[in-house]
Amino acid sequence: MALFAGRIGLLAEKMSISETQPTDQAWPSRVAILGVGLLGGSVAKSLRRYSPRLQLVAWARDESKQERLRALGLFDDVRISITDAVQDCDVVVVASPVDRIAELVRQAVAASPANCLVTDVGSTKLGIVEALENDPQSREKFVAAHPIAGSERSGVEHSSSDLFDEKWIVITPGQSTRRSWVEKAAAFWQLTGGKTREMTPKDHDTHLAAISHVPHLVSALIAKVAPPDARPLVGSGWMDITRVAAGDPEMWAAICQENRKAISYELQRVRQEFDHLQKLVDNQQDEALRDWLSDAQQIKKHSP
Amino acid sequence: MALFAGRIGLLAEKMSISETQPTDQAWPSRVAILGVGLLGGSVAKSLRRYSPRLQLVAWARDESKQERLRALGLFDDVRISITDAVQDCDVVVVASPVDRIAELVRQAVAASPANCLVTDVGSTKLGIVEALENDPQSREKFVAAHPIAGSERSGVEHSSSDLFDEKWIVITPGQSTRRSWVEKAAAFWQLTGGKTREMTPKDHDTHLAAISHVPHLVSALIAKVAPPDARPLVGSGWMDITRVAAGDPEMWAAICQENRKAISYELQRVRQEFDHLQKLVDNQQDEALRDWLSDAQQIKKHSP
Repeated sequence: MALFAGRIGLLAEKMSISETQPTDQAWPSRVAILGVGLLGGSVAKSLRRYSPRLQLVAWARDESKQERLRALGLFDDVRISITDAVQDCDVVVVASPVDRIAELVRQAVAASPANCLVTDVGSTKLGIVEALENDPQSREKFVAAHPIAGSERSGVEHSSSDLFDEKWIVITPGQSTRRSWVEKAAAFWQLTGGKTREMTPKDHDTHLAAISHVPHLVSALIAKVAPPDARPLVGSGWMDITRVAAGDPEMWAAICQENRKAISYELQRVRQEFDHLQKLVDNQQDEALRDWLSDAQQIKKHSP
Repeated sequence: MALFAGRIGLLAEKMSISETQPTDQAWPSRVAILGVGLLGGSVAKSLRRYSPRLQLVAWARDESKQERLRALGLFDDVRISITDAVQDCDVVVVASPVDRIAELVRQAVAASPANCLVTDVGSTKLGIVEALENDPQSREKFVAAHPIAGSERSGVEHSSSDLFDEKWIVITPGQSTRRSWVEKAAAFWQLTGGKTREMTPKDHDTHLAAISHVPHLVSALIAKVAPPDARPLVGSGWMDITRVAAGDPEMWAAICQENRKAISYELQRVRQEFDHLQKLVDNQQDEALRDWLSDAQQIKKHSP
């Protein structure tokens, strides 16, 4: 926690919620999820744990998805129209791929009640927040969020009620987001079992490029370069390093598109370190290589 | 398996063992482990499963290690002298870091009975096999092996009886290793629960550089470049990608030293792919990036 001091504002885990905010489980009483995959499904399942009376609404783009969602038995209502889905809701969660979030938020904001919080789960934040800051209605009702939880598996069938338990959920308000709505968003996200933290969209995107987006690309790269005739021999190390490479290419390509600048910068930083590593190996600097490995080991051992 | 056809000779899992080989659990009756860490300890524990009568001997370099090994209760005998440890043994397993294996094999070969198999667990093979091919006695009795199993944790306290179960154990004979001794080595290693496979030392080192040694270095690199103020936010993806970065720096530096040429070549290959990736991101080739991610996903999904 101390590492964040100065750069990142913190929301205490147990926030003192201002008097205008709901404090009991009567709120929210109706939540819509727009885009029910791994994350959207897990939001619904985690909320369901705290209140069997909570009304959960799903939005599905087409009839076949609508039927699949109905068959799940998780939602009280499944709608094809966004306007229908968000009606009478206290909270709307947009859980689509990042390149469609801003547009869906705009539609949800326009169609939902005045006091309805609209939030999202996007892995990138700056582009989304900047796009919506220009929209007067969205500025009022949208608070951006990113639960740092996921899986290489996608789809609602892999969602789970404990996906967010004890995980960080980063709240990234825009410059004009009202304080009370930031707190409302934090209170909502804490209902999923996660811990909330506040950060600027830019800091979020820079940090996530370094610890999520670029590591993901490197994991895919390690899978990609494995020679076909060596692959049958892979051990548990390779399996773990490449686990996330099984993730959805559409989703990750969209993340790279949205967070291109920070990812590009971070790739350059990795490349510099890579060149340094290559020199240590090629120049037989074996003691320096051992120290380099030792540094990495210490960082790893002191990570959460 | 088909991927290996042509390049890599296979030992059938259930080999027909030649008549000069022991076929019942009377062999081996006494096994010495030189260097009892994660791997040496796991060899002992896995062998113990199939025969409580098997005599297991440990070699420890100093008195304090000797005491720790005695306290384990796993070994029938713990010796400080290699000559004492290998006496009357049917098999000696050298399980030290790779840069000390050749010398320990030489000592074990010289001091052990004429019919004693000497084998090892080293993650690199070419340097060890070449060094020992020049020694007439070692040529007779040493058959190199590499069980592809391990953990980021080291030390006998993390060893386990099932570490090798269903894992590949690669046997890498030298040019003058006798056929019957290769089969003897395979029969021995199968007693640990692993599956054996034969390969040239050179092919082994090339393959392992690609699927183990360089992925390990890249995992350490990803840990190393994580900015301090972003580290508290790492998710499960980063945790898995960097798992092996917690491994022993001494051990991995020795592997890089022993397999420098193959690792250097493989680092260059990774670097080329890395440059290609950077271009896809920087030049906004988003469709090509999605296809690139998709390729990686397919390789990962079709891996063991």
